[in-house]
Amino acid sequence: MTAKKKIGILGASGYTGADAVRLLARHPNAEIAALTANTHAGKAMQEVFPHFFMLDLPRLTEWEKVDWTKLDAVLCGLPHGTTQEIIAAVIASNPSIKILDMSADFRLRDMDVYANWYGHEHRAAKLQAEAVYGLTEFYRKQIAAARLIACPGCYPTAVLLALVPLARAKLIDVDDLVIDAKSGVTGSGRGLKQNTLFSEAGEGLSAYAVGSHRHSPEIEQEIGVAAGSSVTVNFTPHLIPMSRGELCTSYVKLKSCSADDLRQALANAYRDEPFVHVAKKGVVPQTQNVRGSNYVQIGVFADRIKNRAIVISVLDNLVKGSAGQAIQNMNLMLGFPETTGLEQLALFP
Amino acid sequence: MTAKKKIGILGASGYTGADAVRLLARHPNAEIAALTANTHAGKAMQEVFPHFFMLDLPRLTEWEKVDWTKLDAVLCGLPHGTTQEIIAAVIASNPSIKILDMSADFRLRDMDVYANWYGHEHRAAKLQAEAVYGLTEFYRKQIAAARLIACPGCYPTAVLLALVPLARAKLIDVDDLVIDAKSGVTGSGRGLKQNTLFSEAGEGLSAYAVGSHRHSPEIEQEIGVAAGSSVTVNFTPHLIPMSRGELCTSYVKLKSCSADDLRQALANAYRDEPFVHVAKKGVVPQTQNVRGSNYVQIGVFADRIKNRAIVISVLDNLVKGSAGQAIQNMNLMLGFPETTGLEQLALFP
Amino acid sequence: MTAKKKIGILGASGYTGADAVRLLARHPNAEIAALTANTHAGKAMQEVFPHFFMLDLPRLTEWEKVDWTKLDAVLCGLPHGTTQEIIAAVIASNPSIKILDMSADFRLRDMDVYANWYGHEHRAAKLQAEAVYGLTEFYRKQIAAARLIACPGCYPTAVLLALVPLARAKLIDVDDLVIDAKSGVTGSGRGLKQNTLFSEAGEGLSAYAVGSHRHSPEIEQEIGVAAGSSVTVNFTPHLIPMSRGELCTSYVKLKSCSADDLRQALANAYRDEPFVHVAKKGVVPQTQNVRGSNYVQIGVFADRIKNRAIVISVLDNLVKGSAGQAIQNMNLMLGFPETTGLEQLALFP
Amino acid sequence: MTAKKKIGILGASGYTGADAVRLLARHPNAEIAALTANTHAGKAMQEVFPHFFMLDLPRLTEWEKVDWTKLDAVLCGLPHGTTQEIIAAVIASNPSIKILDMSADFRLRDMDVYANWYGHEHRAAKLQAEAVYGLTEFYRKQIAAARLIACPGCYPTAVLLALVPLARAKLIDVDDLVIDAKSGVTGSGRGLKQNTLFSEAGEGLSAYAVGSHRHSPEIEQEIGVAAGSSVTVNFTPHLIPMSRGELCTSYVKLKSCSADDLRQALANAYRDEPFVHVAKKGVVPQTQNVRGSNYVQIGVFADRIKNRAIVISVLDNLVKGSAGQAIQNMNLMLGFPETTGLEQLALFP
Repeated sequence: MTAKKKIGILGASGYTGADAVRLLARHPNAEIAALTANTHAGKAMQEVFPHFFMLDLPRLTEWEKVDWTKLDAVLCGLPHGTTQEIIAAVIASNPSIKILDMSADFRLRDMDVYANWYGHEHRAAKLQAEAVYGLTEFYRKQIAAARLIACPGCYPTAVLLALVPLARAKLIDVDDLVIDAKSGVTGSGRGLKQNTLFSEAGEGLSAYAVGSHRHSPEIEQEIGVAAGSSVTVNFTPHLIPMSRGELCTSYVKLKSCSADDLRQALANAYRDEPFVHVAKKGVVPQTQNVRGSNYVQIGVFADRIKNRAIVISVLDNLVKGSAGQAIQNMNLMLGFPETTGLEQLALFP
Repeated sequence: MTAKKKIGILGASGYTGADAVRLLARHPNAEIAALTANTHAGKAMQEVFPHFFMLDLPRLTEWEKVDWTKLDAVLCGLPHGTTQEIIAAVIASNPSIKILDMSADFRLRDMDVYANWYGHEHRAAKLQAEAVYGLTEFYRKQIAAARLIACPGCYPTAVLLALVPLARAKLIDVDDLVIDAKSGVTGSGRGLKQNTLFSEAGEGLSAYAVGSHRHSPEIEQEIGVAAGSSVTVNFTPHLIPMSRGELCTSYVKLKSCSADDLRQALANAYRDEPFVHVAKKGVVPQTQNVRGSNYVQIGVFADRIKNRAIVISVLDNLVKGSAGQAIQNMNLMLGFPETTGLEQLALFP
Repeated sequence: MTAKKKIGILGASGYTGADAVRLLARHPNAEIAALTANTHAGKAMQEVFPHFFMLDLPRLTEWEKVDWTKLDAVLCGLPHGTTQEIIAAVIASNPSIKILDMSADFRLRDMDVYANWYGHEHRAAKLQAEAVYGLTEFYRKQIAAARLIACPGCYPTAVLLALVPLARAKLIDVDDLVIDAKSGVTGSGRGLKQNTLFSEAGEGLSAYAVGSHRHSPEIEQEIGVAAGSSVTVNFTPHLIPMSRGELCTSYVKLKSCSADDLRQALANAYRDEPFVHVAKKGVVPQTQNVRGSNYVQIGVFADRIKNRAIVISVLDNLVKGSAGQAIQNMNLMLGFPETTGLEQLALFP
Repeated sequence: MTAKKKIGILGASGYTGADAVRLLARHPNAEIAALTANTHAGKAMQEVFPHFFMLDLPRLTEWEKVDWTKLDAVLCGLPHGTTQEIIAAVIASNPSIKILDMSADFRLRDMDVYANWYGHEHRAAKLQAEAVYGLTEFYRKQIAAARLIACPGCYPTAVLLALVPLARAKLIDVDDLVIDAKSGVTGSGRGLKQNTLFSEAGEGLSAYAVGSHRHSPEIEQEIGVAAGSSVTVNFTPHLIPMSRGELCTSYVKLKSCSADDLRQALANAYRDEPFVHVAKKGVVPQTQNVRGSNYVQIGVFADRIKNRAIVISVLDNLVKGSAGQAIQNMNLMLGFPETTGLEQLALFP
């Protein structure tokens, strides 16, 4: 048996941090060696997340106090903005550490686009240049060889897995994409906001960030890469009264092909993928099918409007949409089988 | 004080029937004089809906046993298909009774479209000819003068209130409409189905009836009327883990105008409407705002894609989407102020 | 038609304040004349509660800026502690104003008990002496004649309506009361707390404040009055993943009588009460039956243990448990029929 | 690597059957070799539970068509009543097969008590004699040596783990036990019932089977064994609007000891147990902490009433309350480490 690799988690008091702990605690080749959460420094992890009562975990600490030279990899679940400088400091302290950033800080390759959407200049431009976009299924080789992975956002993961193979194959018109996205409330994080209180978000539904959600440029960047052209998409997210899960309904215009052709193209693209499954004709993906798991399910449907189709993709925003995909990438970077620690099935009901 | 009008409810053991009881029981000019539910005939209404424990209501009876000549109006919450023949029989028994049909049976004017979507010839073709489509805001005069009202479906009400004024004014391209609809679980009725069990529908989300929902032809009929042309729309409904509420996100292509123009056109159209409100720029409609009420809220948003906009409309599927709108129409037909008994505010939280 | 009475609401940005607005806005004899919320002063009420989009309401203001001499009554939904001094100031400014306090500040008659449970001396001892405990069904006469009403807590309302008639009639042993209480999340208010986030409170269940909930002394005070002795009860609340509603399961020891005797005693006690209903034998109360309404439902069940019974009571914590009961009392104080504006039925489903 | 044991599941179309599949599909020593569901025979498991889309599973078949001689063990998730005869037939066909019955059919040792609660004579009296009650923590040795295990009900598991050590140690008065139990909706199974529809069970709460729940005799049997006397308990279950999870609040009378003594006694009893954890003083168990996992959390609290205490226990009704405990027992019977395949952590949020 090989020694376990030592993993740290930056921002362990948030939901993505906690889901990383959930998965890593049962990962056969990983040891959780450091947990940071500056506002909760000094506390036991169980004070912050009591569902870990049965685990023996390191205490939460300030990130500045971690000895990064002792770690093999770090998953970063910090809010965007501060992440850039902290990751730069971590790498300065241990240049061979593997970084899995689950924030948005290194996802946009174009610095101007970043500045435009985030309202400030990028604070680690040099690192940005080496960051690999961590959508495992499309960047597997680059990820395995990289030091810094910008794990995709939850929505982009769901949308890009559904659309990139279609854009690459020129089966759809990338200038006419309407993406109606729906997410559970964990997508808003653990911060205290009035609209995510149970009594506000429960038994109701609304759109949010209409026309202005920061996952738009990330989707456009990668569909643009796939299509070989600059792309603008409609992306409209909605807040759903459930905790986990995400469903994206993408309305596409066909280029001389049928909905069945789209389904076949996706099935071919994901034939050997362990986590991405294309549903048979007539099977409707639902978030219940992937809750708590790293799996993605995609379905394709003919539209009643001629030359249009509907592509529906579902995932768990905290797993394949965040911590699970980060660990999938970590496995590649550390030389473990890609599925290690990630084959847990959906919790249904 | 005028004598109260005597109202019957056909199909009182379903959710729309129950919501009609909830509203009529406190309607100052109405008396609930008959409740039918053939499978529960003989029971007290409270055995079927225990939340009416404080009311004195007629017992549930078979519809054949009601003396229709004693009634002024009847609301019909039966499943589609059987409704046509029962309503024909009721009218035969009392030709001056007012009928508010909440089923789909008289909504489609084109008999071939009906047969095509419902799989059988219409069984009351003559009555269909006199039926008025009960979307109050657009057919007010005809409703006031009619005997038989085909109250619109919940989704069509939400969609048509959002889009008809825009189609009429030729502000949008009616051949490029993508309508992503989301509904609470009561939209599926009270029948026992596995997918509406709490443990199945809770904490999850899926599309359903993709490309085949029977509200499509109804939407197309009325947008066609507004636009003066035959129309095919994309209409894709989703099942949301909440009981009440419906939100329709309509993606529209603009015809030489802006999102602000759309909002202004809607505001003008509904300036004097008691139940339809157009949200100010930047205000996002949410189903929480209309839960349990007869109100509709509509918001308009610019899309990031040039020449496109997003129109969001919300309502309570059992109130303005069904029983409330039926009573609104009933008020018109019986000569009461249109808002009588319907001004209850949303129950939030 | 008599002129409407002018009503103010202190603390209108909380849930009890909002529910008071919901009810008063449709109250035929009331006009909402002032809304205070110091942290939101200057905003439209609709910015704080968008579901009031269809109402014309006064702007939120600081309580110090209200001209109390213009008002006939005020409902107070402020947090406990600060309420005492503000109410004292309001009364100083307008000694004939009617005060309906929905906070806990004037509920405990014993100053020492207050200080013990709330950690500070009472700040308006003189007013406390004139305050009437606002459980309408038991203090109707005193309420009608009073100036300052301490409306009961939501749990005490549910528990006392179930147990006081039994304690008065000496049918139960008041020294052996186990009260297992369950409440929806609105019971925790609108303040931002981690445990009331949707993702934390949803799909789960816990007890809270075990052995230390501040509604205990209030329950003990009133059961003590009914029994004519000092009483200590077990009161254990639980947080339920729903927004509204409260169910209290009271386990009682019988004194030479049967469960049927208890039911009969309660039925006799509430025979003429408009809002309190005793369920027939075998009918199980559920919070769904009272959601959004001012009604209370009580059921009595034999225990398998000899000489024990179970009394179950349900109400909506924001209505009969707070704003509804306040308005019920207000009606008494202002000379309106007690049920005015409160007969809305439960919203089910 | 040893060959995997072949496991069958009787009644695989129910929730307990599905959770057994979820766990066994990732169990390193188990192979799912047969799935039965007579009403769905011939279907793929994925047609019945689409969340297994990524698994290769045997088709559902009639139980009569399974070759039981090829199987090492079978988990039985059939409804009570029919189970007795089917298990008798399975054992007749393969006398050395290990049976893990998750139904109630073999839990009650006293045939008269069984007949009294279930309304018919036991149909496999001889097998009942050899059945071992499968509460792993108390019957570990007998389970390892047995052929037929009657796995406990979900409620009894939660209650007995909380109370048996206290009853054994004579720390509590077993003649004064009030157990207020709360369960998620999956506890009612997957059958179609009106009260478990989303729109009925959601946003509400009720007691059920007050004084008559069939888990009562099971609890009384085992507390009786622990106390060495015949026992009658109050057991009152409530239906909570969540899918999974169970919380039992047990109100106990102390025998010359304190709440701290109870906690210590439980901590001692479970010191070496992998799945049962006693919370530190002040930590409140919540079902969120165990959702989807085989863990149990127990907390003890002093009551305000002298000489009384409150014991709160939580578990996931489908895991430790059913399929998980069955697999825990199966591991013992087949010689695997007891925790194999069961260490998945709670899914929170």
